[in-house]
Formats: sequence, C-alpha cells, structure tokens
Amino acid sequence: MKHLLSINDLSKAEAIAILDTAQELARVSDGPMKKLPTLRGRTIVNLFAEDSTRTRISFEAAAKRLSADVINFSAKGSSISKGESLKDTAQTLQAMGADAVIIRHGASGAPARLAACEWMSGAVINAGDGTHEHPTQALLDSYSIREKLGSLQGKKIVIVGDILHSRVALSNIFALKKLGAEVKLCGPKSLLPKHIESLGVTVEQDIKKTLQWCDAANMLRVQNERMDKSYFPSIREYTQLYGLGLPLLKSLNKEIVILHPGPINRGVEISSGVADSDQAIILDQVENGVAIRMAIIYLLASKIMTPSV
Amino acid sequence: MKHLLSINDLSKAEAIAILDTAQELARVSDGPMKKLPTLRGRTIVNLFAEDSTRTRISFEAAAKRLSADVINFSAKGSSISKGESLKDTAQTLQAMGADAVIIRHGASGAPARLAACEWMSGAVINAGDGTHEHPTQALLDSYSIREKLGSLQGKKIVIVGDILHSRVALSNIFALKKLGAEVKLCGPKSLLPKHIESLGVTVEQDIKKTLQWCDAANMLRVQNERMDKSYFPSIREYTQLYGLGLPLLKSLNKEIVILHPGPINRGVEISSGVADSDQAIILDQVENGVAIRMAIIYLLASKIMTPSV
Amino acid sequence: MKHLLSINDLSKAEAIAILDTAQELARVSDGPMKKLPTLRGRTIVNLFAEDSTRTRISFEAAAKRLSADVINFSAKGSSISKGESLKDTAQTLQAMGADAVIIRHGASGAPARLAACEWMSGAVINAGDGTHEHPTQALLDSYSIREKLGSLQGKKIVIVGDILHSRVALSNIFALKKLGAEVKLCGPKSLLPKHIESLGVTVEQDIKKTLQWCDAANMLRVQNERMDKSYFPSIREYTQLYGLGLPLLKSLNKEIVILHPGPINRGVEISSGVADSDQAIILDQVENGVAIRMAIIYLLASKIMTPSV
Repeated sequence: MKHLLSINDLSKAEAIAILDTAQELARVSDGPMKKLPTLRGRTIVNLFAEDSTRTRISFEAAAKRLSADVINFSAKGSSISKGESLKDTAQTLQAMGADAVIIRHGASGAPARLAACEWMSGAVINAGDGTHEHPTQALLDSYSIREKLGSLQGKKIVIVGDILHSRVALSNIFALKKLGAEVKLCGPKSLLPKHIESLGVTVEQDIKKTLQWCDAANMLRVQNERMDKSYFPSIREYTQLYGLGLPLLKSLNKEIVILHPGPINRGVEISSGVADSDQAIILDQVENGVAIRMAIIYLLASKIMTPSV
Repeated sequence: MKHLLSINDLSKAEAIAILDTAQELARVSDGPMKKLPTLRGRTIVNLFAEDSTRTRISFEAAAKRLSADVINFSAKGSSISKGESLKDTAQTLQAMGADAVIIRHGASGAPARLAACEWMSGAVINAGDGTHEHPTQALLDSYSIREKLGSLQGKKIVIVGDILHSRVALSNIFALKKLGAEVKLCGPKSLLPKHIESLGVTVEQDIKKTLQWCDAANMLRVQNERMDKSYFPSIREYTQLYGLGLPLLKSLNKEIVILHPGPINRGVEISSGVADSDQAIILDQVENGVAIRMAIIYLLASKIMTPSV
Repeated sequence: MKHLLSINDLSKAEAIAILDTAQELARVSDGPMKKLPTLRGRTIVNLFAEDSTRTRISFEAAAKRLSADVINFSAKGSSISKGESLKDTAQTLQAMGADAVIIRHGASGAPARLAACEWMSGAVINAGDGTHEHPTQALLDSYSIREKLGSLQGKKIVIVGDILHSRVALSNIFALKKLGAEVKLCGPKSLLPKHIESLGVTVEQDIKKTLQWCDAANMLRVQNERMDKSYFPSIREYTQLYGLGLPLLKSLNKEIVILHPGPINRGVEISSGVADSDQAIILDQVENGVAIRMAIIYLLASKIMTPSV
C-alpha cells in the first residue's frame, strides 16, 4: 500500500489494520500530550481543488498531531487556475519535497492520475474525487460503527439518500462489504445507479422497512444543487419520503445507530431531534475522522521514510 | 473564567490579571527565544466568518508563540456557507479536538451562542462580534494606556467617532470604567447611541474641549460604508469636525496619548502627521495586541488542560 | 545585506555565498531529518498581494524547514483592501514581531518601499514585484545551471520570450552577468525593451541560431494576457517562431540545458516532449528553489538575531 486512492485497493487485512492503528492513535489524542513526534520534518500538502473546510482541517489536525508540517494549497489563485496540468502540479509538489499529498478534486480519478506520475514518490491520499470515492470518510464510518457495535461482521447497514452522485456512498459500500457487513440502499429511484445490485447490495424504497431491518443507518446529505436538476421534485417531498425524524425513529421499537457525513441539513435528511439524540454518532464520526486520517498518514508515510533519529 | 465573550464577564481583578500576565509574556517576545512550550500539542482554531487579517494574524502569532498548532478556518468555502448552523460548526470543531476557538462573526452574540453549546468544552474567545464587543481590542488598549500613563485609575480617556456601530468603543467603555478611568465620548449625534450616559460616561460634541480635558484619546476608524448610509453628510465634513490633525494637537498646549485601533484612514480620523507623531502609540497597540492575546489564550487554555509532562 | 530587493544589491561574492549556502542546506533536505532548528521562535510573514501559490509554498516550505513559524497574509480580505497603505501594513507586521517579510506585489518597487520604512527592522525579501525583479527566481536559476554545468563563468545563456514584461528575465540578466556568464535575449521585437543592450547583453531574432550558440536556454512562460494586448498576433505564431519542440532541439546536434520558471504552457513555449526530456531541468529548479529560499531566509535572519540558546 503506497497510496490511498480507493477502498478497493485495500485488502480486508489492510482495512482492519487502518482501523486498529486509528484506535491506538485515538488514545494519543485523549492523553495529556496530544502530539506524536513521528513525522517531524515531513511535509504534508493539502491540495484542495474543491472547497471542503471540514475535511481539510481534519487532515490538517491529523498531520499536525503527528508533528508534520502542513502546507495548504487551494485551487483558487493557484497555478492550476493558470492552466497548469495536474501532472505538472504533482511534479512541482514532489520537487518541493512533499512526503504526502492529500488531494480533493472535482474530477473523478484525479488522485489516481496524480499517483501515476512517475516523478511522484510521495504518498497520494484521496480526500474525495468527483462522484468516485471518498475512502477516508468510509473508513471513519466503518470505524465509528465498529466502535458502537463491536464488529462489522454480519451487521446490517443501510445507506439512505442520493447514492448516484455520492462518493461517500460508493466508498461505504466497498468498505462495509469488505469488512463483512450486509448493505442495503434506500432512496429515490432517480438517485440510485442502475445495476447497483451487482456490487452485492440490495435496494429498498420504503424507508421504514429499511430502518426496521438495519443495525445502523447512514443518512447522506442532500445536495441542494441536485434538487434543482430535476432528480427529485422538491426537498420537502424528499424529507417526507426519505427523511428521518423522531416519530419514525421511535416507531421502530428498536435502537439503531445513526450516522451522517455532515454538514447536516437539519430538518431535511434528518431532524434536529434525531441529530441530537443518543442514537446519533455524528460527532463521534468527526472525532474518529482525525484518528483515521492520522492512521493513514502514519501508515503511508512510514513506508516512504528513511528511519530518523 | 472559561471563555472571553465580553469585558463585562470579567471582574476588575481578572482584567488586571490579564494585563499583568501580558506584561510577563511580552518579555518572552523581547528575549532571544521568542517561543514558550506551554501549549505544545494544543490546537487553536481561528474561525473568522468576517474578514480581518490583522486580528487573525495577531491571534495566530500569539498562539504560535505559545507553541500551539493553529488551524485557520475562514467562512468562505466553509460548511457555514453550505448552510451549516453555528451549533454544528461548534460541535464539529470540538469533536476535532479544538482546545480553543477564536471567533469573529458579523452577528452580535455569535461567540456566546458558540460557548453555550453543551458539547463545546474548549474555550471560546470573542475576536469581534457584530456591533457588540471586541474584548481583546479593549484589553490591549487599556494595556497600552497603562504602559504609557502608569495606571488607569482616575485617568481621563475620550473615545472619538462612530460610537453607535463600534464594538471597539463598547468594549473600551466597559474596560476603562472597570479599571477606574473616567470616560467621555465625542462624535456626531447620529453616531452616538441614545441613553449612552447610563453606562457612566459623559458626552461632548466639541472635539477641542474634549481633547483638552483628556489624558488619552482613542480615535476610532471611520467606516466608509456608514457614511453612505446617511449617518453623516460626508467624510470631509467628519474630518473637519472630528478629525485630529497637527494644528489641533499643538493647540492643546499639553501632551495627550493618541490611540487608534487600525487600520488608519490617514487624513480622515487622524492626519498622517499625528499618526506618525511621538504622542501616537498606534504601533505599541499592535505589539501589545500579541501579548494580550497570548495572555488570554494562556489563561483560558490552562484552565481546560490536564497537566502535561 | 539586510534585505533582498534586487539582484543588483548583491556583490558577486554575496551571490556566490547564497548559492554555496543553498548547496549546504540542500543536503539537509536530502537527509533523514529534513528540518533544522535554526529559526525556532522566529516569525516569517508571507505577504502576497498577488496570487502565486507556487512561490508562496516554496517560501513556506523553506521557512518551515528552518523551524520558523509562517504566517500567510494574502491581500484578499486584508486591510490592504480596506485602503491601508503599504507603510501601515509594514509597521503593523513589524509591531507583531515579523522577523522577515516575504512580499509579492503587483507594483514594481513595493518591496523597496516596505524596506525603506524606518520602523521595519525585519528583513524584506522580494518575491516578485510588478515587471521589476524576481531575485530568488534568478538565484535558483543560476544555482540550477551551475549544478549542471559546474560554473557560470564564460557560459552562454539565452533567455527566450517576453523580456519586456518579465521580472524573471531582468533578474536573470543581472544574476548571470554578475556570475560571469554571457547572456543573449531572443524574442519578438515588440517584447524586447529598447536599448536593452546597455545591460551588456546581445539580442537575436532567430531562435535556431540562438540555441546553437548557447549552453543553456531559459524559456520564459507566455503570459496569455499579453497576447490579448496586441504585443503579438497569436499564440500559435509565437510557438512557431519562438517555441521549442523536439525537432528543433534534435536539429541542434548538441546538448543544451533547458530551464523554465513554471508553470509551463505545454505546447506553447516548449512542447511536452522537451519539458519531459533529459535536457530539461525544470523540476531541479523547483527543488533548488526551496534550498535557495532557505539560504536567503537563513542569511538574512541570522543578521537580525540575537544568538539564541
């Protein structure tokens, strides 16, 4: 494992190793001295061609807790906007001594292209590319469910919402299946990819049935911009059919674990009452995100490092 | 004292403790080794929903001199602009392990709302909220006057300009009164809040009389955008009636201390000659700002910390 | 040497000292522990009033490898855009304790004005000002040629392209001449300054003749915005007359060293084949840029420092 581009690149053993490493590293963050000297002198570049403050600062906090130097490189005003190719950007970052590049990009496959450059010796970490994958999000979701339910083996997980455009959904399907869970998808037909069952998942239109079946539900964020594009009549109708409020939650007569990748549209995909309930682990996900990203940076960077004093 | 939201939250003893701590810490900055290891491993987040490079880098420099990691989080492109509520932002920052959040926000009361979140265990520091308060500015102003005049007890301080919209003015009134000074306000009637005398200050329209009375004058910045809104006929007329130039300064036949929160509109609220004169302590204010902010971060962060090795 | 504003401010011995220091420091970056503790506790401010991610992160990486704290200060949203004068900005940065200010500015001479402020005791480093100079680029270019050819004494260097608007060209002419090289310029007449021969360079219109003469060629980036302004009929014609492709390169029957300041317009000033060929040292330039900037920050900052423990 040299880069983290897709969940599919990981073996089951590697995925579990990342989760276990994150668990160890989470203890550091809980201790009195939150910082490890591991990556002192290493340079981690955050190359964010798409805005995402939450993901960027999660990676930044993770790298800094490992004592790395972090350089933020947003697309606005960068040479990318002067027409520089991704290849040249990669080579430039490499030449400047980046030990790892964390890339978020609107184009699916951009991290893979970066990693394929012959001159790029540092690690490439995919922080979300187009509608393709968001592997660190999937790993932190799996970590958070495992923390709550003890294991993923045989657990029933549903992903609710816009599966078609969601890199979070795709990476989650791959990760959950790899770790032994059963996965069901629930959402409007217009937002479910055709033939998605070929990935070994099942599909269900009725949210109540779906929730009654599951141990944990990952409620995807509604992208308002999709609603404009006639994928779905209105946000209000979406909420009525696929939103999760307290009445529905209580009607289940069972406890389920509720995840959300954030930021939440309160009152759309989940209500405020649900987001703030004991069953929601949304803030655990944020906290675990730093630990997962520490683990990935740590594991990838230790591969490329000469042992230091 | 867990947060710093308003000068009114401070007792007189606490306010003096901050000034005294700043004085100690200023010596560190003057020494050969400018950095203290105190906050190594701690994460300070600069959450600036309003642009203010000067204030942001003052806080950033202060936190770094205490060896904290600093994460900058501007509103542009953040999840705030995706409709995330301040509560969710707070919880997210907390979950990511922020030990203190420094917030500047266009809405009066935003820092208080952030601090009121039950999940927010880190310290919240108000770096300016709407037309409400700017407590670190008031503390650095008091510090700078004390440095020059020895004490604030019984000293006569005037604040000149747009009192109505100025959070600097309000925080200064609270801080100066608390520390024993007499405070007078001077400015156009349209820019003075009604019943402001209830705060224990006096009001005067004539700038020459006012300056003759005072030991120190804080010349507020003219916000050009206010002038458009019919609060005052023209900048030129403002300068004639309330601006401070060298002829007026010399006509006083006494030395006064001149403050300005910056950035200066040279030739509007004060002339270039006055800004660069020996009586102006504008650059001392900037320098003292770092010391005051170090003191506040230090005092608040030490409250929430488990002792480290 | 207190500031680095222009190559012309350097003696030949100082220029060579910078190159030699960079060579020493490059070894640090190649070693297992990339970081030196030299500037621990020092604050370096990146004041970029013009966008340039590449140059900014090169300086940022350099300063961090010397263990300095780096504060980024872009013009957008800064007090500069609120009308603050450069003088006030300089004083403010100084008062906040900046040990060095790295400035990029659209106005030729802005770094010199910053350095001329009486209150500015920190070092000022020119990171590109208007159409004036870009001294660190010229030093890294000279370093890269020296690395390849052993020395600059008597070497024949050509600079191809828009000399008229290029600060890179002007700084290169000064640096190369100072270090003993012969310099020829090649480009459209409309993009060559009149009387440029007075700087001790020669001019040639024919690119093939020019390249046959030279040991190294610096292929300047075409600024698309210039092409709109009738300096040259079309980019396509430029490429035909002044671009460098593999056929031309091979027709020379000799090896030459090819430089480019980046970011490359592939297929315009040089072809992809040339950019990726063994004769191009474009990525060496990027890598050497960090070493040169470490050397400059190191040499300037050590002048202003009290020795630390």
